[in-house]
Amino acid sequence: MASPCSTSPWRATVLTLYPDLFPGPLDASVLGRGRAAGRWALETVNIRDFSDNAYGSVDAPPFGGGAGLVMRADILAAAIDSVDREGRPVICLTPRGAPLTQARARALSAGPGLIALCGRFEGVDERLFEARQVEEISIGDFVLAGGEIAAMALIESCVRLIPGVLGCASSLGEESFEGGLLEYPQYARPRDFEGRAVPDVLLSGDHQKIADWRRDKAIEITRTRRPDLYRRHVEGGPIRRGNDKDDAP
Amino acid sequence: MASPCSTSPWRATVLTLYPDLFPGPLDASVLGRGRAAGRWALETVNIRDFSDNAYGSVDAPPFGGGAGLVMRADILAAAIDSVDREGRPVICLTPRGAPLTQARARALSAGPGLIALCGRFEGVDERLFEARQVEEISIGDFVLAGGEIAAMALIESCVRLIPGVLGCASSLGEESFEGGLLEYPQYARPRDFEGRAVPDVLLSGDHQKIADWRRDKAIEITRTRRPDLYRRHVEGGPIRRGNDKDDAP
Repeated sequence: MASPCSTSPWRATVLTLYPDLFPGPLDASVLGRGRAAGRWALETVNIRDFSDNAYGSVDAPPFGGGAGLVMRADILAAAIDSVDREGRPVICLTPRGAPLTQARARALSAGPGLIALCGRFEGVDERLFEARQVEEISIGDFVLAGGEIAAMALIESCVRLIPGVLGCASSLGEESFEGGLLEYPQYARPRDFEGRAVPDVLLSGDHQKIADWRRDKAIEITRTRRPDLYRRHVEGGPIRRGNDKDDAP
Repeated sequence: MASPCSTSPWRATVLTLYPDLFPGPLDASVLGRGRAAGRWALETVNIRDFSDNAYGSVDAPPFGGGAGLVMRADILAAAIDSVDREGRPVICLTPRGAPLTQARARALSAGPGLIALCGRFEGVDERLFEARQVEEISIGDFVLAGGEIAAMALIESCVRLIPGVLGCASSLGEESFEGGLLEYPQYARPRDFEGRAVPDVLLSGDHQKIADWRRDKAIEITRTRRPDLYRRHVEGGPIRRGNDKDDAP
């Protein structure tokens, strides 16, 4: 059976010093099956192949001094230039980047794919970002040893949204961040777990009451755990606030 | 040479349906060398080993209906109970959790280790969290296919902070989030990259001027890219604001 996407699947190209790490965890479960079915493609480029010296080094000490080494702009530019961009963004995984959101993952998953640049050492020469229009994205406010695991997170967040990759598309609609809320609590058998019961409403069979309860719980959890998300959810609702000028009577 | 940590290294135990994914990317570079040197340890527990049926299933349909399957509390509890906690927190990687921060990674790295629970399917039966004091942590506001890559990010963020894992400890002090700011821009050779020069100050040899410039740049980048972090940085500074009562004259 030919895949409907076989002519031009969503494509991730990863620029890294550790190409052997890929696909790694991206080959598990539904993502691995999706790749085998041709719904998405993955390739790696070894940055070291673009070294200009016999040692294969790709870094140099920072101008101005300081600990560690910086990945050189000229070598990374050569690595990027070796890839057919095909309208795909080049994304450097770095804690200095814009925080990855579900909305951004959804937008990326609807496009042709992405090119991920995995930094190592003390970071990347700043001039590269402008010279090659490299977007900086962060998966969170913490520091990793390199961009590889962050690139895996970015790619997984996109690939699972590609039609046909998850078995049941209907489960996408009710998960965290879709609709701007964290997900409501889930319960499964056993009905009694160490004396802890399942909430009665979930056993009632009343679909409207269950939907209302879940909605209330999602709001409550978001408000208590993540007031920042809750505020955005409220402001993004039907009474969305514009700028001051638009609000003026 | 005996490692100073060889008697009781920092230890990560990962509860997962995909134990073969570990160590995976956690074995690259400095982290892999640190593990070989006994500075940290990693073990996996296959959740499926605690299934109560011949199919090895660990999930069940959610009470109240809905798409997908929920990981059962009784099976996950049995998997957790099989691990010697040794004072380590059990952390479930989920987008509903508290966002991981560098401060949290630092606190975890200073402790005995952690036990990571990797969810799959539609999530985990809510009753487990209270029954086993499971902490929920999120690596970011996006959804993954499972908790494995998130657990790798969490573990990597902690392990790189363990003394002796990174080659040069002094490079830790100036990176993003240490001090509450994003990192300043870095430059390395070539001095001229496609007509783009290195900022003069970095070539001046004046250490104080370089330090001032870097500090200014870190503040500027944080303020423009992450006003939320910048606000926290300012509020956490020498003019830290208490609650209203303390501020009253």
